[in-house]
Amino acid sequence: MNNVYLAALQAAKDGRADAGIPIGAVLAHQDTVIATGYNRRVQDADPTAHAEISALRAAGRRTDYRELTLYTTLAPCALCSGAIVQFKIPRVVIGEASNFPGEIDWLRSRGVQVQVLNDPEATELMAEFIVAEPQLWDEDIAHTP
Amino acid sequence: MNNVYLAALQAAKDGRADAGIPIGAVLAHQDTVIATGYNRRVQDADPTAHAEISALRAAGRRTDYRELTLYTTLAPCALCSGAIVQFKIPRVVIGEASNFPGEIDWLRSRGVQVQVLNDPEATELMAEFIVAEPQLWDEDIAHTP
Repeated sequence: MNNVYLAALQAAKDGRADAGIPIGAVLAHQDTVIATGYNRRVQDADPTAHAEISALRAAGRRTDYRELTLYTTLAPCALCSGAIVQFKIPRVVIGEASNFPGEIDWLRSRGVQVQVLNDPEATELMAEFIVAEPQLWDEDIAHTP
Repeated sequence: MNNVYLAALQAAKDGRADAGIPIGAVLAHQDTVIATGYNRRVQDADPTAHAEISALRAAGRRTDYRELTLYTTLAPCALCSGAIVQFKIPRVVIGEASNFPGEIDWLRSRGVQVQVLNDPEATELMAEFIVAEPQLWDEDIAHTP
């Protein structure tokens, strides 16, 4: 695990400590963190504030996305994958895809390079959250039980 | 043009009057406007604040997306189409798709009902903006000229 990924993992833990959904993301240029974010649905009552969106928002207006990598602790959903495709970010590094499959196949079909780390710490953090807060998780993924 | 669509068109005009990108959106339940938004890239220095995202953000946390319709003056990009797919919004009404094709085919492939109004007023508003502010438009669609 490199230090940029570990910053995303720390953001996920920070989100959980802040009573929210434990997903973290980092926008990076090579080994340099540009911006960090975590899911802020609970904290901001903002359903669009997924971790990846929060990081992209924090990074502000840019024209260098083609040189950047987005790190995230969980496989990106359609919203966040759509952002990656729209902003033309060429590379995504994902902590784990076992708790949520995301849109990895679609990302690859659109030419995005996707790496899944299978990080046991991210997997356990998310699994614990889903058991503890099933209604909140269903809300975040628009799942009707 | 129904009144809900006209509220999205007015939001687009408001965004232009506010020195921004003239794209407006409305989240609605049948004929009732739930929330309105316009592109706020310029106003908030937020690249994720496309019109549709702004409207979804303004609508807050919800579990009734399956009963709603998203109206937008311009064909939704991958980011906004991803939000529609992720939130499971079943229907999208689009002012025009001639200035930007968006991801209409992908939306339909994911089961979203898409209607394009071919509204001349939205088309002219956007065409005028693209001529007046080509760099800003390129930035918004991550286009490298």
